[in-house]
Amino acid sequence: MSNATFVVSYALTSLSALSKRNCKTSRGCASMADLTPLFKPKSVALVGASSDTKKYGYWTAKSLIDNKFTGDLYLISKTAAADILGRKPYTSISDVPASIDLAIIGIAPKYILPVLQECADKGVKAVIVVSTGFGETGPEGKALEKEMLAIASKAGMRIMGPNCMGMFSAPASLNASIIDLDKGHMGLVLQSGNFGIDINFNAKKRGLGYSGWATIGNQIDLRFADFVEYLGQDEATRVVMMYMEGLRVSSVNDGRDFLEKARRTALNKPVAAIKIGRSAAGARAAVSHTGSLAGSEKVFDAALSQAGVIRVDSPNELLDVGEAFSRCKPAKGNRIAILTDGGGHGVMATDTAERFGLNALVLSDETQKKLRAILKPHCPVKNPVDLAGTPEADMWVFDRCAEVLLADPDVDGLVIVGLYGGYCDLSEEFRQLEMDVAKSLVERAAKSDKPVVMHSIYQPQCPDSLQYIMEHGFPVYGAIDAAMRAMGALVGYGARQERIRKELAAKPPQLPADRHARVRAIFDMARAQTRVNLVETEAREVLRAYGFTMPEYGLAKHADEAAKLFSKFGGSKVVMKIVSPDILHKTDAGGVCLNVASEEQARQAYDKLLGNARRYDALAEIYGVMVTPMLPGGIECIIGSSFDTTFGQTVMFGLGGIFVEVLKDVSFRVAPINVPEAEGMIREIKGSPLLEGVRGQKGANVAALAEAVSKLSHMVTELADVAEVDLNPVFATEDGVDIVDARIVLRPSNEM
Amino acid sequence: MSNATFVVSYALTSLSALSKRNCKTSRGCASMADLTPLFKPKSVALVGASSDTKKYGYWTAKSLIDNKFTGDLYLISKTAAADILGRKPYTSISDVPASIDLAIIGIAPKYILPVLQECADKGVKAVIVVSTGFGETGPEGKALEKEMLAIASKAGMRIMGPNCMGMFSAPASLNASIIDLDKGHMGLVLQSGNFGIDINFNAKKRGLGYSGWATIGNQIDLRFADFVEYLGQDEATRVVMMYMEGLRVSSVNDGRDFLEKARRTALNKPVAAIKIGRSAAGARAAVSHTGSLAGSEKVFDAALSQAGVIRVDSPNELLDVGEAFSRCKPAKGNRIAILTDGGGHGVMATDTAERFGLNALVLSDETQKKLRAILKPHCPVKNPVDLAGTPEADMWVFDRCAEVLLADPDVDGLVIVGLYGGYCDLSEEFRQLEMDVAKSLVERAAKSDKPVVMHSIYQPQCPDSLQYIMEHGFPVYGAIDAAMRAMGALVGYGARQERIRKELAAKPPQLPADRHARVRAIFDMARAQTRVNLVETEAREVLRAYGFTMPEYGLAKHADEAAKLFSKFGGSKVVMKIVSPDILHKTDAGGVCLNVASEEQARQAYDKLLGNARRYDALAEIYGVMVTPMLPGGIECIIGSSFDTTFGQTVMFGLGGIFVEVLKDVSFRVAPINVPEAEGMIREIKGSPLLEGVRGQKGANVAALAEAVSKLSHMVTELADVAEVDLNPVFATEDGVDIVDARIVLRPSNEM
Repeated sequence: MSNATFVVSYALTSLSALSKRNCKTSRGCASMADLTPLFKPKSVALVGASSDTKKYGYWTAKSLIDNKFTGDLYLISKTAAADILGRKPYTSISDVPASIDLAIIGIAPKYILPVLQECADKGVKAVIVVSTGFGETGPEGKALEKEMLAIASKAGMRIMGPNCMGMFSAPASLNASIIDLDKGHMGLVLQSGNFGIDINFNAKKRGLGYSGWATIGNQIDLRFADFVEYLGQDEATRVVMMYMEGLRVSSVNDGRDFLEKARRTALNKPVAAIKIGRSAAGARAAVSHTGSLAGSEKVFDAALSQAGVIRVDSPNELLDVGEAFSRCKPAKGNRIAILTDGGGHGVMATDTAERFGLNALVLSDETQKKLRAILKPHCPVKNPVDLAGTPEADMWVFDRCAEVLLADPDVDGLVIVGLYGGYCDLSEEFRQLEMDVAKSLVERAAKSDKPVVMHSIYQPQCPDSLQYIMEHGFPVYGAIDAAMRAMGALVGYGARQERIRKELAAKPPQLPADRHARVRAIFDMARAQTRVNLVETEAREVLRAYGFTMPEYGLAKHADEAAKLFSKFGGSKVVMKIVSPDILHKTDAGGVCLNVASEEQARQAYDKLLGNARRYDALAEIYGVMVTPMLPGGIECIIGSSFDTTFGQTVMFGLGGIFVEVLKDVSFRVAPINVPEAEGMIREIKGSPLLEGVRGQKGANVAALAEAVSKLSHMVTELADVAEVDLNPVFATEDGVDIVDARIVLRPSNEM
Repeated sequence: MSNATFVVSYALTSLSALSKRNCKTSRGCASMADLTPLFKPKSVALVGASSDTKKYGYWTAKSLIDNKFTGDLYLISKTAAADILGRKPYTSISDVPASIDLAIIGIAPKYILPVLQECADKGVKAVIVVSTGFGETGPEGKALEKEMLAIASKAGMRIMGPNCMGMFSAPASLNASIIDLDKGHMGLVLQSGNFGIDINFNAKKRGLGYSGWATIGNQIDLRFADFVEYLGQDEATRVVMMYMEGLRVSSVNDGRDFLEKARRTALNKPVAAIKIGRSAAGARAAVSHTGSLAGSEKVFDAALSQAGVIRVDSPNELLDVGEAFSRCKPAKGNRIAILTDGGGHGVMATDTAERFGLNALVLSDETQKKLRAILKPHCPVKNPVDLAGTPEADMWVFDRCAEVLLADPDVDGLVIVGLYGGYCDLSEEFRQLEMDVAKSLVERAAKSDKPVVMHSIYQPQCPDSLQYIMEHGFPVYGAIDAAMRAMGALVGYGARQERIRKELAAKPPQLPADRHARVRAIFDMARAQTRVNLVETEAREVLRAYGFTMPEYGLAKHADEAAKLFSKFGGSKVVMKIVSPDILHKTDAGGVCLNVASEEQARQAYDKLLGNARRYDALAEIYGVMVTPMLPGGIECIIGSSFDTTFGQTVMFGLGGIFVEVLKDVSFRVAPINVPEAEGMIREIKGSPLLEGVRGQKGANVAALAEAVSKLSHMVTELADVAEVDLNPVFATEDGVDIVDARIVLRPSNEM
């Protein structure tokens, strides 16, 4: 991008505008990729089918046939003379006497280009390349991928893969993988087939299946954003799940496209993700592994959270959440009742509640009274409700207590923990009773508008009663933290939706109409001088152009001017700072004088600052000395912005001083954000209670602070030139926000 | 305790002295309880044996017989006419024509007393009461327990239970439970039989067993401390594990006895525990459930950490750790190598490392070079070492890489993650290869002095190769976080031992010889006035008596005296504070004047303070006004002490101001502690980098700070009268520690 066009590459009021107004992703327009040929193809060709039972081409053919694909299936084999699995193969795809929606290609890389061309010529709508040996092996493979993409793009054909393990689609009964996948309600998109196997082992054990399942491999064409968007509108999918190693982006627009599509999906459907590379060492390992440029993990985490994605850490945790949404309705609030027949399990569940945002409240007197009428005096009824040995005498206490708890208007969800499913071992009578009570619990849960989840130490044994509950009712987990994580996800869903809704409904800040011209003048000046660092007076003018209220200031070019400026500002104390494009760290250079209290002191300060600057850097160009009134102080904050290689412009907030330096207590968002998200990022830092005012200190005007954060985020989104903004410190006061120091760095011209 | 004896109830130099010098636990002397009759009985009687296959008395008899108890077994049944399981029962224990070491009693509570008496008369050494219906049901049950204890104590017979699920001992092949337990190397003590079942399900799946296993129920006699101590010296036990709901204590000496025994055990053997009731809501639930008085969770956590106990949160986590120590040698340091055949799994393992204190370091150039000679160019070798598809071509890369990594002197342990165990599905050749490589890996691990743990997504399927590794070599986990938790425990063991060793080797602080008399005079005065609050001048004298350097001060009784004191302190600024036993919160009462800079100001301040005090509380008794030099400032800290109902005197450290008020950033220890533990508690708070000096501020003398914390901890340990000490603020400077304000509260006389 040339210097002439560096300002205002795109003007957005919110992230969602990106995909509406811009066609900027690396693959052309960000409008929805049509994945119907993948998930609901009318006809499928398997290229590389084989009758050799040791070959991938055999296993895949068998999988497609055994799973009873609903459309027409054609096997393609250059070499096979005889039938494959009772079907006559075609020598090439062009021989197939019908149109093909989807081609699954499992042939060696050296044969790929002609086959792709053949597919393109045939009018195939989408191909899945399952073979390995492409970009993941080095530069040659990457070059091959480019050629593949060129063929496909020209024909309007979409590519999934290469280097993937295929896909599965429940509506089409399509299993284009060699993994034994069942139908269900989870939509799972994976960047690794291994994790697909890993998760599926446990999914099968839990009786869970997929509406859609896709391993997207090297993502040379179709990517996470496309699959998330498709599964988001797919009726059979109740929850969208991802295993991510990193986003593959050609530019930050791809990152932003993903964020926006995930967010739009999360408005209508729960979305959960593992993203590896969380720790510093892990991020380093991820770069080695995926070969991708790692953006900031803090920003990735913020982006997922902004998009309303539930982030989990392991395959089992992902499945905990997937199971919850496969089998439960979301909760309306976070107040839960815990019903237990093992005191210790009840306490452990209560311990775990907080970690997942759950409130195990003390039940109302009325509810306690009702429970007391059911239970013996030694049974605790405050919450957890502890049956403490009563089920052996009367199994129906489970059901009667569940009835009371689900009817309590203060309770948003019910967690049953302990030993259910183990009573059947005591006698045949207990076995029958346990099943009867299970049926009643299932019915009760179905009638209620509140979610029910269960933990049982007998879950791994899968007795009939638990099997029944899982198949017909609600999830049963073998570990308490899994059950609580599940309830936490159910409870958090509404809050995540509400957060997105509020943010989208909020008005972006009003920005002055003349801002572009004013900023352009400043940037032009800096670029003309081949500078990327704005001096503080310039940075202040950029902020003013965007409507930030900045204290008055003047630039003194000699000592007398400094004295005059002192008087001009009413004679109260002033701060004086050296203004030089060559002196970035003013304090280190002795370039700041605080508490200047008279004209005489102003003159002295001027001379001193100039002297210090000369000593610091004899060749530094000096524009003068900035004079500005001392600000009365407030709570020290930092508001900043930096450019992330995955998501582009971001905004950062933190409390200043030790909070940033010792505790690294800062929050991030992908820019732009409106006031609701800005308030969220202010509230989420650990030190935020400080803003309410503690130890006799006055509190801060959080609304004004949020307004400033939001405004900065919109500013950097408009100004593609800006690499970094650092407002540090900012004094947050009862009345508003005072920016004490501002630093803006532009991106080098050659990067634009 | 009368007023006359309130000072120096016990004088200890360290916690370990408690059990050596004192016989203060609720059950008499704290010397080791002999659990040999429980774990290695020569003869066992089962009282309540039955031939009814639906009864506990049948199941237990069967369990004892089936598990081939090595000693003599006698079945006792009042009612059985015929043989039970082919053995002739005795009508009563007194009929048995031999001596009995251990009686297992499973009869209704109403019959318990005469049976216990009979056991006592027979000379039975220990009894296990498995029946329920005792203290856990209410006051009547509690009264019955007292009578049981009286009978046993008189006869020197020990009781385990009641309300428990029995026990298991590998050396005696004794399974006195109805649970199917296997022999192995874990010693597990549980406060809940349910959790015993829960953990055992998974232990069996993992092929793990127990050296000793005990459910200790209501703990009317034998408690955690006894079992931990026994298993600590038991040769078959490699790791001691506990499931705790809370300590049952008659006095804090029981809590301290547990801490000390756990610590002595942890010096020689790893100890791990779950303790439920961690959250506020969980603690409330635990009180409902166990009926016990809950001490502070923060203190309990500190005590476990002080004792070197690995704290985990769930049964599965406990087993992760138990498996590690059952099958591995501990690591000498925390630097680990990760070897993976799935890139994503490698990254995930790296992510998880930090959480468990592991350092997935970048491997040395030399090691990388050796690995590169084995692996293809596309395989990352920095750490994680990613085989990236090579095992399919050559399975032995696992073994060759493991050899290189175990030989690297920078590597303390090896974690293999990914897909091992899944290759066998590819072909018969691979099955054989996978087993051969497994055997070599096992051999390699056995020869190395470094631990090896494995994760495999195929672990739940338990293929032959993994089965072999688990049985003959090292643990294989099905989840990455489990593998990393295990390695974390192995790595942390040495550090925990070293911590205890250092603390025990450290000399306690030198305390002035005349401290007791000096403190006694002050306490006598307060007690004589029926006060529990010491005024600040008194608190300062107590601290001085214990060797704390306190600034000079004087007590002015009228304005002129205040002026004189000002001059006496050299004319620099002074602080003046009201001294009244009725005014505790001096600042609230307007009872503090800072920066008093002249004699005149001192006079005015005196009058002002007195006026304020009168307005605040017209009836307050006023001792005068304390005058003391202003201290120059430093890093604001808090050092405090409070009395915990489980562990007694504790000590607390935190950074002052917002760190305490906003972030609750404080650490605790059970008193007394020496300098090493005190340094540990200073370093463990999040804000501790502040003490190194940040933002141009000077750092603090951490050694002096630790000395002060240690000294206070010894002081409160000696002074059983003291309920609470609050040194707040304390200024930590480069030179030392300045105590600015001190508050001491005594325990009410009637509690002594």
